Amino acid sequence: MVLKAKTKNISIVLYKPKYAGNIGSIARAAKNMGIGSIIIVGCSGFDREEMQQRSTHLAADVLDKIQYFERINEALGGFNYIVGTTARLGKARGPFISPRAAAGDIVNISQKNKIALLFGPEDTGLANEELRLCHAVVTIPASREFTSLNLSHAVMILCYEIFTASSGATITEEVTPKLARSQELEGMYGQIKTLLADIGFLNPENPDYWMMHLRRFFSRSSLLSREVGIIRGICRQLTWNAHHKKT
Amino acid sequence: MVLKAKTKNISIVLYKPKYAGNIGSIARAAKNMGIGSIIIVGCSGFDREEMQQRSTHLAADVLDKIQYFERINEALGGFNYIVGTTARLGKARGPFISPRAAAGDIVNISQKNKIALLFGPEDTGLANEELRLCHAVVTIPASREFTSLNLSHAVMILCYEIFTASSGATITEEVTPKLARSQELEGMYGQIKTLLADIGFLNPENPDYWMMHLRRFFSRSSLLSREVGIIRGICRQLTWNAHHKKT
Repeated sequence: MVLKAKTKNISIVLYKPKYAGNIGSIARAAKNMGIGSIIIVGCSGFDREEMQQRSTHLAADVLDKIQYFERINEALGGFNYIVGTTARLGKARGPFISPRAAAGDIVNISQKNKIALLFGPEDTGLANEELRLCHAVVTIPASREFTSLNLSHAVMILCYEIFTASSGATITEEVTPKLARSQELEGMYGQIKTLLADIGFLNPENPDYWMMHLRRFFSRSSLLSREVGIIRGICRQLTWNAHHKKT
Repeated sequence: MVLKAKTKNISIVLYKPKYAGNIGSIARAAKNMGIGSIIIVGCSGFDREEMQQRSTHLAADVLDKIQYFERINEALGGFNYIVGTTARLGKARGPFISPRAAAGDIVNISQKNKIALLFGPEDTGLANEELRLCHAVVTIPASREFTSLNLSHAVMILCYEIFTASSGATITEEVTPKLARSQELEGMYGQIKTLLADIGFLNPENPDYWMMHLRRFFSRSSLLSREVGIIRGICRQLTWNAHHKKT
């Protein structure tokens, strides 16, 4: 059974963010992933228009509901589980976990607990003082050349992992539709072989050489029943054409 | 053994993006995940300062190397494997795969092939015409309430999944051999279309209807260069035959 995150128990907590545009992008990302609550700590007065330009009007409701706090202790007081984020693998700060591992825990913990996903300022990230408040600290894997992510990208990755963990990861994949039966396939191969022999494409001494290559890629594509129908239709037409050419 | 993506074989291809800011954010996201190549198709003249404000100076080198093309066929011609992205699960467009499933394939295929990650314009996304060029189409799982992601967020998620797959995936499958380039495939489709029109198989009023079905299963099988050669040889022979039949 797939357990879904209780997203109403999850909030994004931004500690001293600097740019209204980032807050707008975060509102959009959060809503894309089913999370509707944002808390901002230590600053306020962001330009509404700038925020909404990035959130789009479809996430404007998330902006309307932003809660502002002056102090981090007040903001986090009501939460049961706090997940911090950091790009830096400094000393004495762990244990660090990946967004994927954190997401699995969060889905589970959210069933009965209020969870804060805590992000620091764009330039410096969370300091040890804030990280100390966290039950777990997530680091997003990144290239050594440039580990600092845009704040809204970091939020998106964590929210995406939570959403994916909730949906069991495979939910967007289409269920495999009806594949052709073996006898349909063999009928098709027979028809192709006859056609190719007709037009002199196959070497009579080793007719299966090219057929083997054709079989190989047809097998790889796992043909559907209706696709076999189309191919056989084409072969029929080609064969008819080979025998009744008007000149 | 962990197989790492050959990121130098991976490019982000933006089809008609609208906003310089998004391009900057994408450059940053790409570099965070170790990808350095961006191609822009169908537009140019974006404000450099606006791009760099979002890329930060640490990803300015990615902006410097952006390649511009007028037409999508030119831009994609040299790639062996094209991954499209779409938010819409429209009809007749699949198979759709998740970013995670795509990332696993991409890590493998990138060992010997050039891969394009293709993204459409911010407002409309990729149209069927562009999706037709793709070997696989990724949809990013999102909340039903609001499925449309910011373009740079979509790019980040796919790049993040590739980066994560590189650092954790274990190799079980055979390394994917050299696939046909997009221009070889398009040449083959053109030849098939001419042949089928010749023999009266295609409806002149909607010649692309059957071609779309053919493209779909050919894409699924990720044709090798030499297989495209075989198919084109068969078409040549069939066409010759159609025109020079001995009776």
